[in-house]
Amino acid sequence: MTRIAVPLPKAYRLLNHGPTVLVSSAHAGRRNVMAAAWSMPLDFDPPKVAVVIDKATLTRELVEASGEFVLNVPSRQQAALTLAVGTQSGREADKFLKVGVGETAASVVGAPLIDGGLAWLECRVIPEPHNQQTYDLFLAEVVAAWADPAVFSDGRWHFPDEEQRSIHYQSGGSFFATGEAFEV
Amino acid sequence: MTRIAVPLPKAYRLLNHGPTVLVSSAHAGRRNVMAAAWSMPLDFDPPKVAVVIDKATLTRELVEASGEFVLNVPSRQQAALTLAVGTQSGREADKFLKVGVGETAASVVGAPLIDGGLAWLECRVIPEPHNQQTYDLFLAEVVAAWADPAVFSDGRWHFPDEEQRSIHYQSGGSFFATGEAFEV
Repeated sequence: MTRIAVPLPKAYRLLNHGPTVLVSSAHAGRRNVMAAAWSMPLDFDPPKVAVVIDKATLTRELVEASGEFVLNVPSRQQAALTLAVGTQSGREADKFLKVGVGETAASVVGAPLIDGGLAWLECRVIPEPHNQQTYDLFLAEVVAAWADPAVFSDGRWHFPDEEQRSIHYQSGGSFFATGEAFEV
Repeated sequence: MTRIAVPLPKAYRLLNHGPTVLVSSAHAGRRNVMAAAWSMPLDFDPPKVAVVIDKATLTRELVEASGEFVLNVPSRQQAALTLAVGTQSGREADKFLKVGVGETAASVVGAPLIDGGLAWLECRVIPEPHNQQTYDLFLAEVVAAWADPAVFSDGRWHFPDEEQRSIHYQSGGSFFATGEAFEV
């Protein structure tokens, strides 16, 4: 898995265009990965993010127990994987085995980096129990960030290959690829 | 301005793919519009959204005073407008006049709908002073939603025209258009 460190003040740019992400988590020998269309940057430096994690999910249990997660930006090649981990529960089977998801150890947090992705944000939860309980809303600080230099370098996304674009979930198994770049 | 009502349980789909939005606001005879790349759905039904609104902005003042705003989904044709209202302050000049932004009265809230957009979510702030003060984070309930039926109907986006696609801000005046739709 090719990856370079993204300077933390530029980490928000990995999510600024609103891609769908995978949330990976681990605690006490258990691990999971789910899809999340509802995430966004929350601050520049130190970088923070917000993500919605439903109470019914195993991810929720592992994130609350560990205080950590990784936001992984999947590629179009991983769209079927994204849908699969977004519609199956980690309570029934280990999704890494069932769906065939490869993982690599992260640098700071215990949650793994999902192989084959475009970018990775290692996150530490900022405890906000009211937000978590009332809105399923988790705020976190980004403590390390990585990207595949084939698609993100010098703080900018560039997508030379149709299959290596980020994706944006609509509904019912339908996605959009990130489209044409343009300047104004 | 052509628009049809979007049933509230489907309103999240207007933002699910992570477009950059315009936040319009009004209070006591003043009005403003700014760009926001940091917004996301927060719940399905009743629909809720989250959006980051910096303390330095006039929008912040108007949203806190009125408890209302509109999230407008701009088209690629409005990218220059989006950048302009995202880089100028409403404290110095009325951006509607200076940038040339048309507006139409909303149905429930006092904030206006921005003309020429693809979709509109009328929002009422859920007061969360700690989030607002600490994170510039606003949570709101969507109380009415609209879309241009040329690009959104039956709960799905469809973009027949390159100029009428939604947009995703990167940085430094660079955007991505929403790209190819695909199913998995």
